[in-house]
Amino acid sequence: MADIRLIEIKEDILSDNKNLAGEIRDSLRAKKVFLLNLMASPGAGKTSLILQTIRRLKDTFRIGIIEGDIDSIVDAEKVTKEGVPAVQLRTGGFCHLDASMISMALAEMDLANLDLVIIENVGNLVCPAEFDTGAMRNAMILSVPEGDDKPLKYPLMFSICDVLVVNKIDYLAGSDFDMAAFRDRVLKLNPGIRIFEVSCKTGEGLEAWTGWLSGEVETLN
Amino acid sequence: MADIRLIEIKEDILSDNKNLAGEIRDSLRAKKVFLLNLMASPGAGKTSLILQTIRRLKDTFRIGIIEGDIDSIVDAEKVTKEGVPAVQLRTGGFCHLDASMISMALAEMDLANLDLVIIENVGNLVCPAEFDTGAMRNAMILSVPEGDDKPLKYPLMFSICDVLVVNKIDYLAGSDFDMAAFRDRVLKLNPGIRIFEVSCKTGEGLEAWTGWLSGEVETLN
Repeated sequence: MADIRLIEIKEDILSDNKNLAGEIRDSLRAKKVFLLNLMASPGAGKTSLILQTIRRLKDTFRIGIIEGDIDSIVDAEKVTKEGVPAVQLRTGGFCHLDASMISMALAEMDLANLDLVIIENVGNLVCPAEFDTGAMRNAMILSVPEGDDKPLKYPLMFSICDVLVVNKIDYLAGSDFDMAAFRDRVLKLNPGIRIFEVSCKTGEGLEAWTGWLSGEVETLN
Repeated sequence: MADIRLIEIKEDILSDNKNLAGEIRDSLRAKKVFLLNLMASPGAGKTSLILQTIRRLKDTFRIGIIEGDIDSIVDAEKVTKEGVPAVQLRTGGFCHLDASMISMALAEMDLANLDLVIIENVGNLVCPAEFDTGAMRNAMILSVPEGDDKPLKYPLMFSICDVLVVNKIDYLAGSDFDMAAFRDRVLKLNPGIRIFEVSCKTGEGLEAWTGWLSGEVETLN
């Protein structure tokens, strides 16, 4: 039998990324800027949740947005119409954001005049879960139409998030989404996760979410 | 309306990758080592095609394999049992290989004693198509059970390959795979692509494939 050499790609890349993410976190903490990383599948409601959050919190905090989701500036335009600055990372179909991309985006922002920066990560429940962006907290959205089995299919994402926003609860009536079974699956993977049930369409449940987020931002002050 | 800054992540990353890929290609050409990048979905038959290729060509060329497909060394073990050396890139679920990873793998190989290196890329029809690995030729496999609609769903992959191996043609009888429609869809995306219809199980069609590959390797000598 011939020779096999083994190279651990993932460990090298992830350890470089982790180091840079730690530097970003330390630097933002010193500047009193809270960084939230928001992840979800395409269409789960990342932009809607961000717009609702801006409307509810923009009089309390100075907010900025890093948009990484799509290959256009549509989402960034929606956000800036709410009066908050945005950096659009045109990823062109890339599957995740990493710490070096976030570092590039933060360099374009006026951090001295911001309290809260929200990253809208690429629409994907797999790769973004692998990469520490430098955020203080990781949040994900799972929307009711995606189904209650997703924790079984994407366990890493549910494991690494501090917060889970279950969006589109207005679809629950007439759906076979089993919230009790879903919560049970999530909590088995991640007993400490905070879960908020919301509808960005009706506004239901959003106050609990923004209350949690406000408390987190205030920990830096 | 607030300010939007735009950062083109993809262009930066892909242009760095392209430069390194060009350096790899020049260096391998000088050493008379032919590098082939083999891409496909999981289960399409990448390892089977590599094993069949080794059996048919190992008396003619000195072959080495870079295995990037899976999170174990199973595929590398199968290859080395055929008597050819392998480097296993343990990607741990990463979605593609890039030029820097291939450069790391080539550094572990005895290139002075190789004529042909085959990269078994990660099982994925999306991301690997974006990244030049430094290979002289890109090949892909589409297996009959995957369906004849794949060129419509993954146009970039079909566009950037020099060669398409249609594997598992032993499944054609009793399948609704329409080879004429499939070829038509592929050739509309990429009129210059070479198409080989094979079965790694029965051996049918493999001689045309290895004949083409031998001709390519010989162009370096």
